[in-house]
Amino acid sequence: MTTSLPHAVDPRALTGVLDGRWSHVRRDARENLHDPELLPVYGESMAEARQRVTRMARKIADSGRVSLGFPKEYGGEGDVGGSVTAIEMLAFTDLSLMVKAGVQWGLFGGAVQALGTQRHHDAYLRDIMSFELPGCFAMTETGHGSDVQQLRTTCTYDPATQTFDLHTPHEAARKDYIGNAAKDGRMAVVFAQLVTQGTNHGVHAWLVPIRDEQGDPMPGVTIGDDGPKAGLNGVDNGRLTFDHVPVPRDMLLDRYGQVAPDGTYTSDIENETRRFFTMLGTLVRGRVSVGGSAAAAAKLALDIVVRYGDTRRQFSAPGADREILLNDYLVHQRKLLPALATTYALHFAQEELVGTMHDVQAAEELDEGAQRELESRAAGLKAAQTWHATRTIQMCREACGGAGYLQENRLPHLKADTDVFTTFEGDNTVLLQLVAKGLLTGYRDAFGSLDGWGKVGFVADMVRETVLERTAARGLIARLVDAVPGRDDEVPLLDRGWQLKMLEDREKHVLESAIRRLRGGAEAASSPARPVRPFDVFNDVQDHVLRAAQAHIDRIVLEAFVAGIERTTDADARALLDRVCDLYALSTIEADRAWFLEHGRLTPTRAKALIAAVNALVKELRPHMVTLVDAFAIPEEWKGAAILREEDDRQEAMATHDVAAGDAELRRGTATSVEVPPGQ
Amino acid sequence: MTTSLPHAVDPRALTGVLDGRWSHVRRDARENLHDPELLPVYGESMAEARQRVTRMARKIADSGRVSLGFPKEYGGEGDVGGSVTAIEMLAFTDLSLMVKAGVQWGLFGGAVQALGTQRHHDAYLRDIMSFELPGCFAMTETGHGSDVQQLRTTCTYDPATQTFDLHTPHEAARKDYIGNAAKDGRMAVVFAQLVTQGTNHGVHAWLVPIRDEQGDPMPGVTIGDDGPKAGLNGVDNGRLTFDHVPVPRDMLLDRYGQVAPDGTYTSDIENETRRFFTMLGTLVRGRVSVGGSAAAAAKLALDIVVRYGDTRRQFSAPGADREILLNDYLVHQRKLLPALATTYALHFAQEELVGTMHDVQAAEELDEGAQRELESRAAGLKAAQTWHATRTIQMCREACGGAGYLQENRLPHLKADTDVFTTFEGDNTVLLQLVAKGLLTGYRDAFGSLDGWGKVGFVADMVRETVLERTAARGLIARLVDAVPGRDDEVPLLDRGWQLKMLEDREKHVLESAIRRLRGGAEAASSPARPVRPFDVFNDVQDHVLRAAQAHIDRIVLEAFVAGIERTTDADARALLDRVCDLYALSTIEADRAWFLEHGRLTPTRAKALIAAVNALVKELRPHMVTLVDAFAIPEEWKGAAILREEDDRQEAMATHDVAAGDAELRRGTATSVEVPPGQ
Repeated sequence: MTTSLPHAVDPRALTGVLDGRWSHVRRDARENLHDPELLPVYGESMAEARQRVTRMARKIADSGRVSLGFPKEYGGEGDVGGSVTAIEMLAFTDLSLMVKAGVQWGLFGGAVQALGTQRHHDAYLRDIMSFELPGCFAMTETGHGSDVQQLRTTCTYDPATQTFDLHTPHEAARKDYIGNAAKDGRMAVVFAQLVTQGTNHGVHAWLVPIRDEQGDPMPGVTIGDDGPKAGLNGVDNGRLTFDHVPVPRDMLLDRYGQVAPDGTYTSDIENETRRFFTMLGTLVRGRVSVGGSAAAAAKLALDIVVRYGDTRRQFSAPGADREILLNDYLVHQRKLLPALATTYALHFAQEELVGTMHDVQAAEELDEGAQRELESRAAGLKAAQTWHATRTIQMCREACGGAGYLQENRLPHLKADTDVFTTFEGDNTVLLQLVAKGLLTGYRDAFGSLDGWGKVGFVADMVRETVLERTAARGLIARLVDAVPGRDDEVPLLDRGWQLKMLEDREKHVLESAIRRLRGGAEAASSPARPVRPFDVFNDVQDHVLRAAQAHIDRIVLEAFVAGIERTTDADARALLDRVCDLYALSTIEADRAWFLEHGRLTPTRAKALIAAVNALVKELRPHMVTLVDAFAIPEEWKGAAILREEDDRQEAMATHDVAAGDAELRRGTATSVEVPPGQ
Repeated sequence: MTTSLPHAVDPRALTGVLDGRWSHVRRDARENLHDPELLPVYGESMAEARQRVTRMARKIADSGRVSLGFPKEYGGEGDVGGSVTAIEMLAFTDLSLMVKAGVQWGLFGGAVQALGTQRHHDAYLRDIMSFELPGCFAMTETGHGSDVQQLRTTCTYDPATQTFDLHTPHEAARKDYIGNAAKDGRMAVVFAQLVTQGTNHGVHAWLVPIRDEQGDPMPGVTIGDDGPKAGLNGVDNGRLTFDHVPVPRDMLLDRYGQVAPDGTYTSDIENETRRFFTMLGTLVRGRVSVGGSAAAAAKLALDIVVRYGDTRRQFSAPGADREILLNDYLVHQRKLLPALATTYALHFAQEELVGTMHDVQAAEELDEGAQRELESRAAGLKAAQTWHATRTIQMCREACGGAGYLQENRLPHLKADTDVFTTFEGDNTVLLQLVAKGLLTGYRDAFGSLDGWGKVGFVADMVRETVLERTAARGLIARLVDAVPGRDDEVPLLDRGWQLKMLEDREKHVLESAIRRLRGGAEAASSPARPVRPFDVFNDVQDHVLRAAQAHIDRIVLEAFVAGIERTTDADARALLDRVCDLYALSTIEADRAWFLEHGRLTPTRAKALIAAVNALVKELRPHMVTLVDAFAIPEEWKGAAILREEDDRQEAMATHDVAAGDAELRRGTATSVEVPPGQ
């Protein structure tokens, strides 16, 4: 791992590794997904954006590119991984189109497919695939987003009429932020509390017409418009209110729960909470798509900023002929390269996740444990990917200065469109909590019911084996970690085993200490002497618990990167990936080095050496920056950034002119005597 | 400093302290700055936004509210501090209007005032103040933003015609991002290299007509439009290209450099670089305004998120009657309260800066040292304020979930409009470098010229006295720091002297070690044995140097907060501010605790105690969150966020309905069994 890097690496070798299992889907999109209307039009109105995106959604439907995930008997290919990869590729073009497609074919179509039964499939799937039947996924309410179990919309069965009565009891229960609702949607999958024979059986879904053939709202349905948003203005998000709308019995998507004509409720899954989570679990695809799309947006932003920084010059230096390239500044490298390394790391983690999802969902029998694991992984990676995109695109915007603020240079759209990714498809903070919960053995069972608090002793004395269960490269990683000698302090910082061990140690320690604190709190809560509110026990440790989730995700991601490298056969590509992986690992440890210092995992001396090692790595990777974005293989037509077309010519014109005009006469400042003007 | 907080604090007492020296300007704006067209209209097109903002600019001009900073003889009040405060208050309404006003009266008018002489003042100031003469500040070029000395536009004097020839030699030299250029501007202050008698005298400014009475471009002037931007779409940013445009001799703004009819150049300031920086220095007002406006936007975003979080409930808890308020979650407090504390800290630092600027600029004689200090302070605070605004508004958007993504809830505009603040009026990274440079004694002189590198020994063996020169509360702070006993480890974390000492120690140490590294590098550079490029010497230490600047700013800001508390007479307000100051100090140290651990300033045990202390502080401040935003005294009409009007009613409706419907039936999840839905 300390071999020196080749002078130049062929980016195509890297692309081959990155493209992975669904490389054919990626290649097809790069070669064939081209249309003059595909990119955001800068300055278009919300109405224009919505129209263009609807037109494009139809075209995309016609191309068949979005039906990969549907069953073969309806004209699809039963290829779940392929369908998510296709959505991710759309994200490079127009994020509104990606979200529109995600709503129509991922969420709406996906819910009909996963929660419905054959009669729903026969009646609707083909029209959904062709966009003949645009639809909505009406889950979130104004009053409840993250906490779906608390939805207030009710759907009450009446055996006399054999219909359900779908009703919005108050303003907080209206469906909100619903894509396809404001303009296009003809039907909606509506989530509501199922009440029959006087009993609430929890949240279920119905297929409900919301507009008639003329596009007018159906009787009892009120449709509102969420209006202009920060971004994604090509998506017609809206609000739905139901005033005692009758819904025929057979419109209940009844795969996991059925209501007989007389109102008797039946389900294969007895336990209501388990049933609820099983239903939600089938919808994991949406969350995986958002993570992948966020990654695509981050890659495009990095592509723009790295190329611009390799052309754009600013400030002179003594002895240098021309001004200095932005990419030659240490502080610029320090911003761009760790973000690029993290993008690579997350790419491999996403690739692994998509493969796992594909396999879990393709299995004949539902493996509940595997699905639970998948959901947790999807939640954690979605949070990591979307926060990474938000931070990275923000950084790229700033690193392009004023140019980065102009819509013609794409970055404003990337930023605004992806901004909601951190809070939709599950709020990231809540998702981290979900991940953390999955990590705490026994804790879940003890805390699952109201009674559990304080009464039940905490069974988790140790972190269960599965917490540190290995990712794809199980054997390799165990070997690398085991090979690290006892004295951590003497191991080279570039030793992969040491890096893995550091992230593994942290996860284990943070988790164990969180469990200890929770147990201590619960004992206090149950003590009659000094009663503590159960909520306070949980709340006092909330930051600690989320930290455990974060540490877990960091470790998972590093392991996926290591597994990806292991699959790389091209020696040059492998050497470069190895170094990028070093940068990911060390900059991740560096960012949290306070923790490692506080817990005796780093000495002050070694922590300082770590900072120097990251600086050395960015210097070493500097010549490969462009190669690393070349490897994303983003077609020129998808980039839509004027600076990429223009900056090179400008620098040439300036260089030619300066030589003619007498260089020394005009070149005045130096990079070391930096002063700054007031603005525009 | 360990007294307990009063149960409730009157926000008006806090407002009185925050309003400070220009409280009359703030009160006037709150009471009288109201107009139906004042707020951004959600969904308006770029053309509509520009028209509205131009109309508002005229109205504001008529109100006289923007002429405070102009000389009394032209109808102003010669009140520089008041003029900056007035701009800051505009920022609460529509940031496009704030920027438009900043361009017209701050930059354009300010440049005519500061760089021009009486004939320019007599001819133009009144029309500038009344907006009869809308104008541009044409400094930045497409090819050069931060490095103004490198501008490529030339203005060459011809004694035969007694005119200058203003020329854009190539695309990279066109003026870009120029506010008021695309639509409204009639004249522009154009910055260019002044060439006369075959010699370039460096950058100067001319007053140049760019449009005729009909609004058509003047001969030789080409005007382009920057088109839609990420935000600030009410400002008509554009591009100016000059094709050998003749400019009469008397249109040179000649306060600091004059050209006689025969082309002889004269100036009171012999040294070209000093002259250049003196000219730029007079324009510091723009940068101070941007910092203050960023602060206003952050306050408004915090106002929205804190009030929303005090109404919005999400997830149940065992034993609790209703769902939990967002503001009751530790992780939510951990996001909001340190941001709020930093907002307070920066407010006091800004207040001090505005006062200093007012006094320096009002002085009869130019105090060059004081001006230099002022510029450095303005640069550092502008960077701190604008990065804080970017981070804080982003956090507020996310903390409001989907609601935060709707334009009707204001946060999208606040985010998009302020986004460019971090890179205009000086790119923040470059500004930090400027601050750092000011901190390195001797270094400047040694590095100022090309020859200096390596040859000249570094004179700076110690950090000069002025680096740790005290801010407003000099005596008090020295006493507090001196009172800290020797053993840092035993001092309570809430001891203000200890907090001050920590930030002071860090600044001193980081600066001294940066100087040592630079000196070492320079010696290596001058060694014949192993030559190092001078640029590399500088570049290898760039991150370290910027860290010194950051440490300096943190210390300055804390001292300003302490000085602000010292001025507070109301006992309750003072107690609350004291605790907010603790949170600012400790969360600042916490964020960089790795450094303190690495440098022996914190033991691991104490670092952990610090984290616990921050948690305890946010818990203690929880009941005062709303008071802390009430104190900003933002009028309801300026807020324009639908959720502030609606959420309370929704929660009430839901609570009433739930009780009626049978509470237990519908309330299912708990805060500790959090699961998350896919989105829409």
